[in-house]
Amino acid sequence: MAQVGFIGLGVMGAPMAGHLLRAGHEVTVWNRTASKAEPLVSVGARPAADPAAVAAASDIVMICVSRQEDMLEMVDRLSPGLRGDAIVVDHSTTTPAAALGAARRVPAFIDAPMTGGSMGAQAGTLTLFCGGSLEHFAVVEPVLAAYAKRVVHVGSQAAGQRMKLANQIAVGGALIGLCEALAFAEKAGLDLELTRELLNTGAAGSWAFTHYGPKIVNRDWSPGFSIDNQTKDFVYCQQEASELGMALPGTEVVQGLLTEMQAAGRGAETTAALFEWLLKESAS
Amino acid sequence: MAQVGFIGLGVMGAPMAGHLLRAGHEVTVWNRTASKAEPLVSVGARPAADPAAVAAASDIVMICVSRQEDMLEMVDRLSPGLRGDAIVVDHSTTTPAAALGAARRVPAFIDAPMTGGSMGAQAGTLTLFCGGSLEHFAVVEPVLAAYAKRVVHVGSQAAGQRMKLANQIAVGGALIGLCEALAFAEKAGLDLELTRELLNTGAAGSWAFTHYGPKIVNRDWSPGFSIDNQTKDFVYCQQEASELGMALPGTEVVQGLLTEMQAAGRGAETTAALFEWLLKESAS
Repeated sequence: MAQVGFIGLGVMGAPMAGHLLRAGHEVTVWNRTASKAEPLVSVGARPAADPAAVAAASDIVMICVSRQEDMLEMVDRLSPGLRGDAIVVDHSTTTPAAALGAARRVPAFIDAPMTGGSMGAQAGTLTLFCGGSLEHFAVVEPVLAAYAKRVVHVGSQAAGQRMKLANQIAVGGALIGLCEALAFAEKAGLDLELTRELLNTGAAGSWAFTHYGPKIVNRDWSPGFSIDNQTKDFVYCQQEASELGMALPGTEVVQGLLTEMQAAGRGAETTAALFEWLLKESAS
Repeated sequence: MAQVGFIGLGVMGAPMAGHLLRAGHEVTVWNRTASKAEPLVSVGARPAADPAAVAAASDIVMICVSRQEDMLEMVDRLSPGLRGDAIVVDHSTTTPAAALGAARRVPAFIDAPMTGGSMGAQAGTLTLFCGGSLEHFAVVEPVLAAYAKRVVHVGSQAAGQRMKLANQIAVGGALIGLCEALAFAEKAGLDLELTRELLNTGAAGSWAFTHYGPKIVNRDWSPGFSIDNQTKDFVYCQQEASELGMALPGTEVVQGLLTEMQAAGRGAETTAALFEWLLKESAS
């Protein structure tokens, strides 16, 4: 069993740290809002005063925050306490440039963004895209298995983030396909549940139709994955595409629509609410 | 068993008529290029001299052509021979307006566009979206089952076409998501087959990733569903959206890119070739 630190105990991090405890690891935790650590401390996690104290108690330190500027701040704040042979694993979604920036500060760095959402974190069935050296990967892989069904080495440092951004681009396409098709069906007077079910059985079928389609039929805009989170990731996609000298014309359209929804105060809703936005747009 | 006519013996129609024969129906056929009828005639189909002669020999007349102007021409040409209680079923993809136009000429009309592609036609596992009266639907349903795994009544006349266009809109979104994500991955230096496999297991997963993804990895641009066919359907989608007073911003982007590819002489390739176009665009 390992000494593991966990920084960032939000909707993803808290259940992930819980899985580490249940797997028998010694887990030291810190969160900006300290009260979020309490449920974990009550089941055996050790509270730390600051990120450096987490690092001082750990062979592997996980970071799980939202924005890349927060991730970079955590790397700065934990590094004074870092043990000589410790490895830092970042689960946040960031640009590849931010991952490489963190790796300059902490060379034993693995970027390990995840898919599977809050339900995957709770069930311990996340998929992790890991970028870093194979040597470091071999050390952390069995520990990460506590909350992931798949822990995949996809390349050197920053490759995990590149894979995650590719994933978000594909998610955006599936989202506009789903929302635009169902908005069209609604305007055309088709039965929405029949449309969702029929289209999902053929060449238009997708995870989005299966999981977001029913939310649209029921007009349930609770997240899920929020518009705020999706647009944050799209900004990172565009930054990296610009580095690579390429355009992302499909992503641009979805990003533009979701950004309009944010401006209208709907950023906390699920991305599937785009369906309603397309209907409203057409009514105006 | 019924007396069935079949007009249009292309890559879809020929195997569909074959299934009708094997189901024991009396099948009369006609095709603009007469030689395409020969293989069916050799296994028991009756050749007709023109569409009116097909209608004169049939209780149910199927039409299966590409463009809606061809469908409307066939309706015109068959109607002089049509029996009093005969039903016309159109499997082409058209605008809802064209279906309603055909139904004015031939009131016992069912629009029944299909999904499942040439492989579905050969295997007899198509899905049919049927618009028309329930009374007519009840008559044709058991006959259509000869080549379809699902024959679904989705509403009154033209509703089948509306469902098919909704399907094509969703297919377009899935396509841009797939091609843009894999083009990004390629530019970012990720392993393309690993990317395809990993993304398909999560929230980005789709029929497109499963079936078109491997073609992209192998740079195999043989259709599949061609860019020419997809852009034809997108024109119909936009015409109907305009009737409904709504915009299709995602479809517009995919349509624009595929239309550029047509202009570059790539219309006969599979839609998945969009991957290569996005890479070329970024190189220019």
